[in-house]
Amino acid sequence: MTIELYWGSGSPFGWRALLALEWKKIPYQSKLIDFSKGEHKAPAFLALNPRGKVPVLKDGDFVLYETLAIMTYLERKQPEPVLFGRGPAEAAAIMRAISECTCYFEQPAFQVIAPIFFGGVDDKAAVMKTAAATLHEELGRLETTLAKSNWLVGDEPSAADVWWYPEIMLLERAGAKDVAAPLDLGLASIAKRYPAIGRWQKRVEAEPGYQRTYPPHWKQAA
Amino acid sequence: MTIELYWGSGSPFGWRALLALEWKKIPYQSKLIDFSKGEHKAPAFLALNPRGKVPVLKDGDFVLYETLAIMTYLERKQPEPVLFGRGPAEAAAIMRAISECTCYFEQPAFQVIAPIFFGGVDDKAAVMKTAAATLHEELGRLETTLAKSNWLVGDEPSAADVWWYPEIMLLERAGAKDVAAPLDLGLASIAKRYPAIGRWQKRVEAEPGYQRTYPPHWKQAA
Repeated sequence: MTIELYWGSGSPFGWRALLALEWKKIPYQSKLIDFSKGEHKAPAFLALNPRGKVPVLKDGDFVLYETLAIMTYLERKQPEPVLFGRGPAEAAAIMRAISECTCYFEQPAFQVIAPIFFGGVDDKAAVMKTAAATLHEELGRLETTLAKSNWLVGDEPSAADVWWYPEIMLLERAGAKDVAAPLDLGLASIAKRYPAIGRWQKRVEAEPGYQRTYPPHWKQAA
Repeated sequence: MTIELYWGSGSPFGWRALLALEWKKIPYQSKLIDFSKGEHKAPAFLALNPRGKVPVLKDGDFVLYETLAIMTYLERKQPEPVLFGRGPAEAAAIMRAISECTCYFEQPAFQVIAPIFFGGVDDKAAVMKTAAATLHEELGRLETTLAKSNWLVGDEPSAADVWWYPEIMLLERAGAKDVAAPLDLGLASIAKRYPAIGRWQKRVEAEPGYQRTYPPHWKQAA
């Protein structure tokens, strides 16, 4: 039974699930949901995930949503190559990196990204600047880690890299939009400002299958 | 080497780590941090966790923060009794329950709890009411699950129960404060409004070691 993965172009959550599938070399059928047509709120999709969010994984009759749950499922179902670490300390370090993204990065990132893509930059400039300062603190921590190590935890790609990469990419894409320029958030080129992060991005992009995970609509309109 | 666990009275994050230790029957030395004395921002503690947050676990020279990372470490170090599930589907369901608390419950819960404990109820009444509505939706989902099952996932206590229980308790405690009464948030007694959740709370409280995890300052002042 082939695994089906429902995702949406540009969603960092769906991107994570795709990267996990590619890195674990698990065959899957790609089910690209079109947000612009509201397919994530259509009855057929809500039957899979009542929250109307991607990613959703379908493995025969088994349906699963929430990204970390999907990644956990894939790891348990096919342990190698390992994404969640080998010993207690490594597994913990990976989960810590994931938690730190979720707890300290995603909310300020959303505060910056949402007005850029959905409007309201002028009204929300103050909140965006405060959020950007928090993001730079966290990016500074990442930079320190990646200046010493090719991957976020240990010597190999892990779930920590899967988790952080799409979030950084989305933030960088938002930061580079014209509408963000007057705010001078310093997020237009994360790779230039944080060179170790930039080298890590290239490493992720060199992994097999990467092109299949890249948001299709980002290719069309830069 | 005995594990040391740094926690703070009333923090749901520290409470989770304590419950995980108790449920896994792992011996530990309790290190209670006094928030009111600012011990979580003191140099000795910041040396353990630069973010100044509990819980922190120390296992010999190994220091670890972030609750989910600590729980992962304990599970890998001593697999039985299992808290994170046995097969792929159960492990995924547990991680989904944890993710749903983190992604959909904790932020609105914070929006309700913070003004009640730290002031600003009058100014924030509208936000609090909106947040409470979201919380009731999520509590309704929990109620549906717990009406059919003794535990959040599967037939035994798991990391999902460890994750949700302290959050519900903190919310209920905040909801019962006099200052919250005029807002009529419906959170003063979650157990009464959601009887299956109430029965599950009693089940958690009947587990061995529970009393050692209960916030000391909640005992003193109800």
